[in-house]
Amino acid sequence: MGDDGGHAAAGRWGFGANALLAGISASSIRAVLNVVMSEVREDGPRPVLPLAHGDPACFSCFRTTSVAEEAIVDAVRSGNFNSYASTQGIVPARCAIAKYLSRDLPHKLSPDDIFVTAGCSQAIEIVISALASPGANILLPRPGYPFYLARSAFSGLEARHFDLLPDKGWEIDLEAVEALADENTVAIVLVNPSNPCGNVFSHQHLAKVAETAKKLGILVIADEVYGHLTFGNVPFTPMAAFGKIVPVLTLGSISKRWVVPGWRLGWIAKCGPDGVFEHNKFVDNVRVLLNITTDPATFIQSAVPTILENTENEFFQKTVDILKKAADICYDKLKEIDCITCPHKPEGSMFVMVKLNVSHLEDIHDDTEFCSMLAKEESVIVLPGKKHYAGVSLGLKNWLRVTFAIEPSSLEEALGRLKSFCNRHAKQSK
Amino acid sequence: MGDDGGHAAAGRWGFGANALLAGISASSIRAVLNVVMSEVREDGPRPVLPLAHGDPACFSCFRTTSVAEEAIVDAVRSGNFNSYASTQGIVPARCAIAKYLSRDLPHKLSPDDIFVTAGCSQAIEIVISALASPGANILLPRPGYPFYLARSAFSGLEARHFDLLPDKGWEIDLEAVEALADENTVAIVLVNPSNPCGNVFSHQHLAKVAETAKKLGILVIADEVYGHLTFGNVPFTPMAAFGKIVPVLTLGSISKRWVVPGWRLGWIAKCGPDGVFEHNKFVDNVRVLLNITTDPATFIQSAVPTILENTENEFFQKTVDILKKAADICYDKLKEIDCITCPHKPEGSMFVMVKLNVSHLEDIHDDTEFCSMLAKEESVIVLPGKKHYAGVSLGLKNWLRVTFAIEPSSLEEALGRLKSFCNRHAKQSK
Repeated sequence: MGDDGGHAAAGRWGFGANALLAGISASSIRAVLNVVMSEVREDGPRPVLPLAHGDPACFSCFRTTSVAEEAIVDAVRSGNFNSYASTQGIVPARCAIAKYLSRDLPHKLSPDDIFVTAGCSQAIEIVISALASPGANILLPRPGYPFYLARSAFSGLEARHFDLLPDKGWEIDLEAVEALADENTVAIVLVNPSNPCGNVFSHQHLAKVAETAKKLGILVIADEVYGHLTFGNVPFTPMAAFGKIVPVLTLGSISKRWVVPGWRLGWIAKCGPDGVFEHNKFVDNVRVLLNITTDPATFIQSAVPTILENTENEFFQKTVDILKKAADICYDKLKEIDCITCPHKPEGSMFVMVKLNVSHLEDIHDDTEFCSMLAKEESVIVLPGKKHYAGVSLGLKNWLRVTFAIEPSSLEEALGRLKSFCNRHAKQSK
Repeated sequence: MGDDGGHAAAGRWGFGANALLAGISASSIRAVLNVVMSEVREDGPRPVLPLAHGDPACFSCFRTTSVAEEAIVDAVRSGNFNSYASTQGIVPARCAIAKYLSRDLPHKLSPDDIFVTAGCSQAIEIVISALASPGANILLPRPGYPFYLARSAFSGLEARHFDLLPDKGWEIDLEAVEALADENTVAIVLVNPSNPCGNVFSHQHLAKVAETAKKLGILVIADEVYGHLTFGNVPFTPMAAFGKIVPVLTLGSISKRWVVPGWRLGWIAKCGPDGVFEHNKFVDNVRVLLNITTDPATFIQSAVPTILENTENEFFQKTVDILKKAADICYDKLKEIDCITCPHKPEGSMFVMVKLNVSHLEDIHDDTEFCSMLAKEESVIVLPGKKHYAGVSLGLKNWLRVTFAIEPSSLEEALGRLKSFCNRHAKQSK
């Protein structure tokens, strides 16, 4: 062997760049967030205020219930849940999730309908991977949650984007959906309550979505990770209510309602016309994927029944009350800012999409520049609506994605800084 | 829209089978295990004894240390670790893992060299995905851990198999490695201590592996999930000891040494000639993948420093002592069975590969049939060495994969049942 090094001359190691991954990089929220965050002055005199990420867990007013914490403590101390879990998830967790979701449905889900996942992220990963067969395409909302696009790109599943309509309370443009779909379309994704628009889809609108999907012969993927986090006039309707008409996969987790995104416990629930998921092998695909991916920690799974069944209503109500208060503050304060328009008052989730009128600004030319300068000058983090993947703009240019799910006094402080930033950069000749 | 149903006639939903996933199905340990387990008589009079799966956590003698349990309890009760973690893993966890691994190395790893993953499974998933560029191939050991093959197939990374040599203590056939590699080879995988062979690679042999990899210009992926679980004459040498000669990715976790596979906490550690992982963009690939996959639970990450630094030596020693005792029982009892040959006494990990001499058996024709009948008649679970992927045999036909990592008295019981099973099916005319 000796020292000749073969073809391994300096720098000649035979592994490295991966064009697929390089292309996906820019489309993840985390990547965009990192770019914006990098503008923050590390020696800045004021704390960084994050209006970018749906993770209020670091604020004490959003501390999770001790019911959930103690359920974990008991599971760990029992020593009974240190083994690998079964790939579909342990039975008590699947029973509890089926029961929890069935409460809001006209029919009952069974434990066999549930697949326990490591957060809603893994639920998305599994479902997108299962659907990605050669030539297939999927319909994604614009604006949407970029993780769907990133996973579709990774799996070679063609993504086609339909618009959510700001002037119609961010309803789905169903005509556009029909125009986009073809015989290779496998599914449509909706996020309800909506990330990032903050609306809640009405029962009537979801019925129309179900009819459209039935007509097109496609699956509905309902991302309900913000389920029950509603505080406007539209009650939350789970998409599985239409599971007798159209196949529905409901994706969810304890991350948002229990304010524990770091616990990584989510699920996929299937609900469709008789046996459709078995008949067309979809369940087999999911099982294979669960066999070759990681699982949520077993002791966290074992705490799920207690968490879902014993959490006190006061905890849920407190969280929703704070979110409602924060949404009100956000809407009212943004109305005072000249260069920002909020087309729809948020009534669910933790987000709102607002329009940036760059023509009102002196020295800022688009949303990306706006977010970078805001981070630099005010240590306030907001995400641009614009997204690119492989050179195509997929988000909404000159819109901003804002979360109000932070402690209300910090939110007021952040919006105050945002207002003075906008005033400082406003065109003088108005 | 109405009731016409468009092209969605009964059964005409436009999603379903996925040829790639259907092909992968049969190659996962979990899938094979499910097949063997399905043979067990549910109304059998005796408990099922699992000699198949490297998960001793359900036996009380392998109960993890309270240091680890209480570290989790403290993290959960603090309420400080409910948020999403940073994609590379939280800094204290990365610092602790770097320090832990550096103890056994001639040089120091930095926290930037560490990527925290949801168990070693996710570490494998990330590394294989990062390496899978079109046309690339990877060298895998035979017999090996089938998860590497399943993930390679999923990612479209061509797998080429080199043999481990039973007559040379399961050393790597390095001549075969050189013959298999070409200019598209990106990496070689080794599992040390070995799953499923039970040997431990010597420092001298690993030095030869490093020289071979250097000559070929390829990365070494060292799966050290069983690191420090050694009980023979060969001490454990981490592959990263050769990180100045050849790029090494060390994969590990707390699953095995702490007997908590269900906690899903693992890592990737990089160690290579100056800047090689940055220079060739490998680190960027890994970062993208971490951005689009799930994470280990944040509070489990936060417990890692206490777990790695404060676990008492008595706990490690007790685990190794039980494994050594179990390995001795296993080796001695198997020697008494006519149709089984054990070429190498296990000296590490939790497994041993043994040869099944079917010519000694009356009515059993191969390892798969042996395992199925053993499960049915004796409620003892052992895995066949043979594996198929896309019609190609990749394992070792007529070998058995046996774990001895169960409570010693159950192990004796299981091996007793195995012996009477073999005697019952032995050829009479011997």
